[in-house]
Amino acid sequence: MKNFYSVYDVENVNALVKRCHEIKNDPFGNREKGKNKLLVLLFFNPSLRTRLSTQKAAYNLGMDVICMNMAEGWKWEMEDGSVMKFETAEHVKDAARVISSYADIIGVRTFPTLKNKTEDYKDKVINALMKYSTVPIVNMESSILHPLQSLTDLFTIREKKGNKSLKVVLSWAPHPKALPQAVSNSFLQWMKVVNINVTICNPAGYDLDPSFTKGHHIVHSQNEAFNEADVVYVKNWSSVETYGQFLPHEKDWMITKEKLDKTNDALLMHCLPVRRNVVISDDALDSDNSVVIEQAGNRAIAAQAILENLLE
Amino acid sequence: MKNFYSVYDVENVNALVKRCHEIKNDPFGNREKGKNKLLVLLFFNPSLRTRLSTQKAAYNLGMDVICMNMAEGWKWEMEDGSVMKFETAEHVKDAARVISSYADIIGVRTFPTLKNKTEDYKDKVINALMKYSTVPIVNMESSILHPLQSLTDLFTIREKKGNKSLKVVLSWAPHPKALPQAVSNSFLQWMKVVNINVTICNPAGYDLDPSFTKGHHIVHSQNEAFNEADVVYVKNWSSVETYGQFLPHEKDWMITKEKLDKTNDALLMHCLPVRRNVVISDDALDSDNSVVIEQAGNRAIAAQAILENLLE
Amino acid sequence: MKNFYSVYDVENVNALVKRCHEIKNDPFGNREKGKNKLLVLLFFNPSLRTRLSTQKAAYNLGMDVICMNMAEGWKWEMEDGSVMKFETAEHVKDAARVISSYADIIGVRTFPTLKNKTEDYKDKVINALMKYSTVPIVNMESSILHPLQSLTDLFTIREKKGNKSLKVVLSWAPHPKALPQAVSNSFLQWMKVVNINVTICNPAGYDLDPSFTKGHHIVHSQNEAFNEADVVYVKNWSSVETYGQFLPHEKDWMITKEKLDKTNDALLMHCLPVRRNVVISDDALDSDNSVVIEQAGNRAIAAQAILENLLE
Repeated sequence: MKNFYSVYDVENVNALVKRCHEIKNDPFGNREKGKNKLLVLLFFNPSLRTRLSTQKAAYNLGMDVICMNMAEGWKWEMEDGSVMKFETAEHVKDAARVISSYADIIGVRTFPTLKNKTEDYKDKVINALMKYSTVPIVNMESSILHPLQSLTDLFTIREKKGNKSLKVVLSWAPHPKALPQAVSNSFLQWMKVVNINVTICNPAGYDLDPSFTKGHHIVHSQNEAFNEADVVYVKNWSSVETYGQFLPHEKDWMITKEKLDKTNDALLMHCLPVRRNVVISDDALDSDNSVVIEQAGNRAIAAQAILENLLE
Repeated sequence: MKNFYSVYDVENVNALVKRCHEIKNDPFGNREKGKNKLLVLLFFNPSLRTRLSTQKAAYNLGMDVICMNMAEGWKWEMEDGSVMKFETAEHVKDAARVISSYADIIGVRTFPTLKNKTEDYKDKVINALMKYSTVPIVNMESSILHPLQSLTDLFTIREKKGNKSLKVVLSWAPHPKALPQAVSNSFLQWMKVVNINVTICNPAGYDLDPSFTKGHHIVHSQNEAFNEADVVYVKNWSSVETYGQFLPHEKDWMITKEKLDKTNDALLMHCLPVRRNVVISDDALDSDNSVVIEQAGNRAIAAQAILENLLE
Repeated sequence: MKNFYSVYDVENVNALVKRCHEIKNDPFGNREKGKNKLLVLLFFNPSLRTRLSTQKAAYNLGMDVICMNMAEGWKWEMEDGSVMKFETAEHVKDAARVISSYADIIGVRTFPTLKNKTEDYKDKVINALMKYSTVPIVNMESSILHPLQSLTDLFTIREKKGNKSLKVVLSWAPHPKALPQAVSNSFLQWMKVVNINVTICNPAGYDLDPSFTKGHHIVHSQNEAFNEADVVYVKNWSSVETYGQFLPHEKDWMITKEKLDKTNDALLMHCLPVRRNVVISDDALDSDNSVVIEQAGNRAIAAQAILENLLE
C-alpha cells in the first residue's frame, strides 16, 4: 500500500480485517516495528477520536509522533503557478516535500468547505499531499472520505455479526448543522468492496452522490429500511444536490429504541460525536443494540492495522 | 486508589509523601512501570507547570502521553436527557467512555466559571468524567480542588521542615483579577488529614467555604497570623460569600520581606504563577525564605507518585 | 557549549559541520544519549520546519519532548522590579527557573515586533531565559538570529560544494509583508566565522545592520552580485534603517532562472516557507540549481548535532 486514501488502496480488505482481530488480541506485539519511525499528523480541523486513536496506534507500534494544529500556522497555496502575494505563505508542493523529509508517514485531516461541490469533491489538499509527498499519506478524513472510520466500521460489524449475510442500513438522521458526506461516502465504498449491498434511507433531497450510492439501494422510508435490518448505521449529512445545504429539519428521522425494536435486533452504529436526542435518542444509544463506544475504541485498532501496513 | 480527585482518595498520605522522597532520589527507577500505557491529558484551561510536570512524570514512568487542548475542540454536554441541538456536540458520558477506551489514565483541568457557586462547587466536569470513565481520572485542578498542588505542598513542607509540629499560615494576598479557591481549599483538606491546624488569614469578606475551613482557624489580621509562623503559604482567591467577586483591593495584604522577618523564619510558599510586587514583593520572593521554585519543581515528583499509584 | 544562542557559542564550527555529515549517515547511532532527558520547546510564534525538525532530532537522540504553544498561555513580564498588576501573569525569571526544573534543554522561538529596533535588537526574551534558566537554551529563531538555520545552511553548502573557495551571495528578494532580519543576520555571522566573505545585494534602504555586514560586501545591484556566484542565498527582510518598514515593492528583485543562468551554476538556497513567483519564480525553484528541499531536510541534522552537543 503506497497511501491510504480509500478502500481502493487496500490489496485485501478481508485480510486487513483479520489483522484487526489479531491486533485487538495482541496490541503490543509489534512494538518494535515502528522504532526510529516518525508519524506526523496534520489537523486542519478539530479531532478527538482520530487524534487519540491514531496516536495510540502509532505508540503501540513504537513510533514517534508529532501532531500539528494546522489552523495555527501558515496557509498553504494549492494552485500551480500562482503569484503568492496574498494570504498563502507556502505552496503545498513545498510543504509536502519538506514534511516528507522529516516524516516516515504523514496523516492529514481536512474538511470540505460545503460551499462548492466541484471543488470539495476534488479533495485537493490530500491529493496534493499524495502527489508531492515522498512518504505514505494516511487519510484521517478528507473532504469526501473517511476510510479509517470505515475500516473500523467493517471490523466492528464482523466482530459482532461474523461473516454471515446481513441487511445493513445506512440511515440519515437530523442534525442542527450542515455536515460533510465523508463518513457515509466512505462507508458505502467499503461495503461495496466486501459485497454488502447497503440499504440507504434518507429524506428526499438528501440522496448521496451517485458515484458512491451505485450498487447500493436508496429508499426514502426509514420504516421500510429498518425492517429486518441487522445493522443500522446512523449518520447525518448535508444535501449533495443542493450542495452543503441544511434542508428543513426532518425531526421524524431521529433514531429511537422504538424504531430499533422493529429491526432484526440490529446493531446501532455511529461514528461519534453524536448529538443525543437529536440524531439518536437516549433510549436507543443506551440500549443493548448500541455498539458506538466499542466502535470508537476500534478506531485505534484500525489505525494500527493501517500504520503497520504502511511501515512495511 | 481508583481516581485521584482529592486527598480522600489516598489510602495513606504519609506513605505517599515518603514515596515522593524516594522518587526525588531515583526518578527513573520505575521507567518500565508505564510501558505500553497511555496518559491522556485534557486541558480546558491554560497550564504551564501542570502540563510540564505531569507529562514529565509520565515520561519518567515510561508512559506515552497525549495532551489535548480542549478549548479548540467540540463543547461537551453535561446535562442528562438534554436535546443537543445547540452548542454542545458531544455528551460527557460518551466522551468519557470513548477516551477511556484509548487511555489508561486520564488527567483533566477544568476551572470554575466564578459566576455561580452552587454550580461550580458541584465540580461537574470532573465528576462526570469519574462517573463515566472506565479508567482512573486525575484531577489536574478542578473548579474547587487542586490535589496535585497540595501533595506537592505537603511534600515540600516535610522536605524542608521534617515532621515536627509547625505553625502553618495560609495567607490571602492581593491580585488584580478574581481567582478560583481551588488551591486554598485543597491545601486545607490535605493539612487537615495530616493533623495540621492551619491559621488562615484574609480580609473580611474573603473567608473560604466552611466545609474547607472547618478544623482550621481563621483570623483577619495578617500580623497576628504571621507571628511565630513556620510556613507562610500565600494565595489569592476571590470571595466565596460574594461569590467570585473581586472586592476592593487590599493593598496592605501584599507579602513582603519585612512581614516574613516577623515570623519564625518561615518558608514562603506559593503555587505560581505569581504577580511580583502585587501578591508578593520582590524582596520576599528573592529571599532565602522563598522555596517557590523548588516547590514548583516538586510538582513533577508529586505527579509521578500519583501516576505510579494509579498504574498499580 | 552552555547555550546555543549564536555561532559564537560553538567551539569548533568545522567540527560541528563534520558531525552533521556523520549524523546524516547514521541518524540513530546516538539513540541512547538522550534517554531520560526532556526537551521543552516554547513557541511564541508559529513554526513548521523548526518544530518538526527539532522534535525529530530529539527523538533520534531518544529524548522526550514537550512542545508548548506559548501564544495560548499567560504573558511573561520582562522588566525587573515591575508591579505586575496589568497584563503579565508571570515573570520570565520565575518561568525560566520553573521550566528549568523540569527540562534538560529548553528551545525557544520568539519573533521581533519590528516596531522598535533598539528593543528588538536586545533580544530580551531569549536573553532573559539564558540569564535565569539553569539548563541550556537553544535559539529556535530569536528577534535577531536563527542559528539552527545557519548551521543548516553552512552544512548544506559544504555538502554540495565541499570546502573549496566560493562566491556566496545573499540576495534580498521581494515579499508582500515586513519580515525579520534574523535569518540573514545569522547567515552573515556564520559565514564570517568560516572566513567566507559574502556578497550581500539588496535595494537601497535595505542594508542590514553594520554589526552583521561588517567583513562582508554590500552591493545594490543583483546583476553584479550574481556574476560568478557559486551560491545564491535568497531572503527577504524588512528595512533596518527605516526599521521594520516594508519599502516600495522592488519587483525586479525576484529571483528567476534567467538570473541564475548568469551565475556559476549557483546553488539556490532559501530557508522556506517561500512565496512562489514573488520571492523566487517557479522556474528557479523547480530547477536543478535549487536545493531548498534538501536544505530544509538538513534542519533535522543540524538540530540533532546541537542537541547532542548540549547533552554532553
